[in-house]
Amino acid sequence: MLQQLKQDVLQANLDLPKYGLVTFTWGNVSGIDREQGLVVIKPSGVPYEELTADKMVVVDLLGNVVDSQYRPSSDTATHLVLYRHFPGIGGIVHTHSPWATSWAQAAKDIPALGTTHADYFFGDVPCTRAMTEAEIKGEYEKETGHVIVETFRDRNPLQIPGVLVHSHAPFTWGKNAHEAVHNAVVLEEVAKMASRTHAINQETAAMQQTLLDRHFLRKHGANAYYGQTAALKEE
Amino acid sequence: MLQQLKQDVLQANLDLPKYGLVTFTWGNVSGIDREQGLVVIKPSGVPYEELTADKMVVVDLLGNVVDSQYRPSSDTATHLVLYRHFPGIGGIVHTHSPWATSWAQAAKDIPALGTTHADYFFGDVPCTRAMTEAEIKGEYEKETGHVIVETFRDRNPLQIPGVLVHSHAPFTWGKNAHEAVHNAVVLEEVAKMASRTHAINQETAAMQQTLLDRHFLRKHGANAYYGQTAALKEE
Amino acid sequence: MLQQLKQDVLQANLDLPKYGLVTFTWGNVSGIDREQGLVVIKPSGVPYEELTADKMVVVDLLGNVVDSQYRPSSDTATHLVLYRHFPGIGGIVHTHSPWATSWAQAAKDIPALGTTHADYFFGDVPCTRAMTEAEIKGEYEKETGHVIVETFRDRNPLQIPGVLVHSHAPFTWGKNAHEAVHNAVVLEEVAKMASRTHAINQETAAMQQTLLDRHFLRKHGANAYYGQTAALKEE
Amino acid sequence: MLQQLKQDVLQANLDLPKYGLVTFTWGNVSGIDREQGLVVIKPSGVPYEELTADKMVVVDLLGNVVDSQYRPSSDTATHLVLYRHFPGIGGIVHTHSPWATSWAQAAKDIPALGTTHADYFFGDVPCTRAMTEAEIKGEYEKETGHVIVETFRDRNPLQIPGVLVHSHAPFTWGKNAHEAVHNAVVLEEVAKMASRTHAINQETAAMQQTLLDRHFLRKHGANAYYGQTAALKEE
Repeated sequence: MLQQLKQDVLQANLDLPKYGLVTFTWGNVSGIDREQGLVVIKPSGVPYEELTADKMVVVDLLGNVVDSQYRPSSDTATHLVLYRHFPGIGGIVHTHSPWATSWAQAAKDIPALGTTHADYFFGDVPCTRAMTEAEIKGEYEKETGHVIVETFRDRNPLQIPGVLVHSHAPFTWGKNAHEAVHNAVVLEEVAKMASRTHAINQETAAMQQTLLDRHFLRKHGANAYYGQTAALKEE
Repeated sequence: MLQQLKQDVLQANLDLPKYGLVTFTWGNVSGIDREQGLVVIKPSGVPYEELTADKMVVVDLLGNVVDSQYRPSSDTATHLVLYRHFPGIGGIVHTHSPWATSWAQAAKDIPALGTTHADYFFGDVPCTRAMTEAEIKGEYEKETGHVIVETFRDRNPLQIPGVLVHSHAPFTWGKNAHEAVHNAVVLEEVAKMASRTHAINQETAAMQQTLLDRHFLRKHGANAYYGQTAALKEE
Repeated sequence: MLQQLKQDVLQANLDLPKYGLVTFTWGNVSGIDREQGLVVIKPSGVPYEELTADKMVVVDLLGNVVDSQYRPSSDTATHLVLYRHFPGIGGIVHTHSPWATSWAQAAKDIPALGTTHADYFFGDVPCTRAMTEAEIKGEYEKETGHVIVETFRDRNPLQIPGVLVHSHAPFTWGKNAHEAVHNAVVLEEVAKMASRTHAINQETAAMQQTLLDRHFLRKHGANAYYGQTAALKEE
Repeated sequence: MLQQLKQDVLQANLDLPKYGLVTFTWGNVSGIDREQGLVVIKPSGVPYEELTADKMVVVDLLGNVVDSQYRPSSDTATHLVLYRHFPGIGGIVHTHSPWATSWAQAAKDIPALGTTHADYFFGDVPCTRAMTEAEIKGEYEKETGHVIVETFRDRNPLQIPGVLVHSHAPFTWGKNAHEAVHNAVVLEEVAKMASRTHAINQETAAMQQTLLDRHFLRKHGANAYYGQTAALKEE
């Protein structure tokens, strides 16, 4: 079942080491079939070089394993909360990519400082609040999802396709698993450049709102004029 | 038409990922045939691995597509302004290479701190002023070109073959597309070392003018004494 | 003798350049056969590309060469002290990996700032005190082991599988040579991210103890729930 | 003539890009035959991929080309001054390797902060004074050599096999071209770690003299006890 989605999610998982986003197995990608309400996700603790489409785990939106002898990623509960609350997304990535993770550890939003950022994220990439004792000791992975959802109470997850989890690491998403990986690569690049920008000039101000609007909207939405037809990525 | 130029511009575009200057499709190179007044540029949104000489787009200096079924890079208008105002240049590169982009985001000129810089750039690499609301909301890509030209009002673009666009990223140029890419590599290296130099010693002063003169002029101009005949690059 | 252990230690040594942890021959790995009380370690000064299982040196816990025409690594005495004092460990790695070495040179413990750290190290990674004149001029390599042991007087080496030696570089260990290398990779990654985190936010506080507990204990000990069965590494 | 030396110098030049020390042609290596008083050096401005042993240029100690149709590296005069004043050295490397160059631009000696440094450099790696107007406008490359020699008035070039030229970049040397490249790699690594160490702890003190002595002398001189016989490099 869901052979194409399994193939896509496999490929997206394999793209993580290809883009240098993961050390060992520190990352996972999932994708959802919205019609069937089923999520395909990486199995827990299997090295990337041993992954096959058949080893991808299918779970329903409550976390029940539907089709697999493998246990799903231990972060599955976080993914499911995001799929339930962000109906427009089709794929999710979690990594400990080092630059974005450093911002998460520093507990700072990544400010929008230039057009690279603006081409993908329509504003700062937020960092969640610290979780409470009760949240950490309770259903920790599910609560991680809830604190992300709380962070997006006044933000549009389709316009800011990523978040930093406090003292932890980033999650990104997109319309499918491939796009979620794409956004994970961009987030790491943007995190790197924001850190270096502050090192060069600690007083660096946020970019102009007008410029942010211009860049985001020329690539996204009804009036986009990038690429040949509807290409997502372009310079 | 323009088969050799298309081939050269293709090769120059392919050199961008080879030198680690681009993520995804975040970069473009063009070249000009001054006699015919025609510019060859990368098509918009086509991944590097799918580029061929035939897909390169030919436009005239007003931006009319002369020979292609593809749309030219969305930055084409910026390139054309530079070709019109800087008659000595034959190729242009735009990237979001991370070190140079960090300086652009920090809105700082890259100071000349050593002979690596002096071998290629005869003074600081300037950062443009922030663009106005009207410029951003108007013909944005063309205005980007104009703000670069304004920055070079009292500078010689043949002696300082690159610029940082405020809150955006660098452009470099050269006598042809190949040399423009060469200068993009140098700019990234120089940007990296300037940042690290300041981290080591915040008080670092600009290099001596005499040393800057000596290095630039031993590689450029009538009295150059580098290389076997007229080789551009040499240590 | 000890063919399998020699093979394992060879492989672990070869993994050091593979993971980018060593320049030239600046690193060594050993493994122990606890039943026989014999240690297998890299020979001194042999380039990685010339290493074979047969060249691995067998020494007893007092440092006597049991089976080899090669001299053991000059750091052997340090390894042996650790094997004698930390009975639960089966493999040891020493490198000059650049991020961890920078913390050792700075004479600072690496603070636990996020879950990447917490997944492997149950608290800060300590830096030893400076060695005394007498220790340096005496049996220096053995004394290096003793100062590490002293640093773990009130720490559990199985829960904090690594240390920084003051003005020198890191040692890591694990239940075998393979796991010791794994921990060396993690330590380098954690050292890198801690440094970048402080660069982003100098005021960064240590992570919450509850979160540290949660992450360490979900991967280690009786109630671990990571991986398929008992996989060590997982996200 | 000098076929073996040409081969060695060719190989040493090719090692520069292999170790990531050079961009384009920004580096050169030479070696000397002390008996004949002849130096073999890289030709000026020839890309690394086109270098062959036959293209290496032979010059005498006064800079006269003895055997070549190529022009020698424009830095030849600097090399020759060092060979004339440092009789114990057999090979010289010049690069613009980015970390060491950043220290040169910052005009700071690289302090001895740990045993990696102490294994190769018996004290700080010095930075030369700024050159005078007259030196820069005169025989610039020869004067560069003289300012290096001046810097070593009270230092032993065999114990500190490298230097930073103010606002320029490093030179290293060794008993032959191969060892000079080895020292260039070490210098870059040491420069990187010193910079990161200061970023972690601005108050970092110089390492203990006793530890510096111990490490340098266990690898160099009569009482060295590293490696199998007399191997230079070892951990």
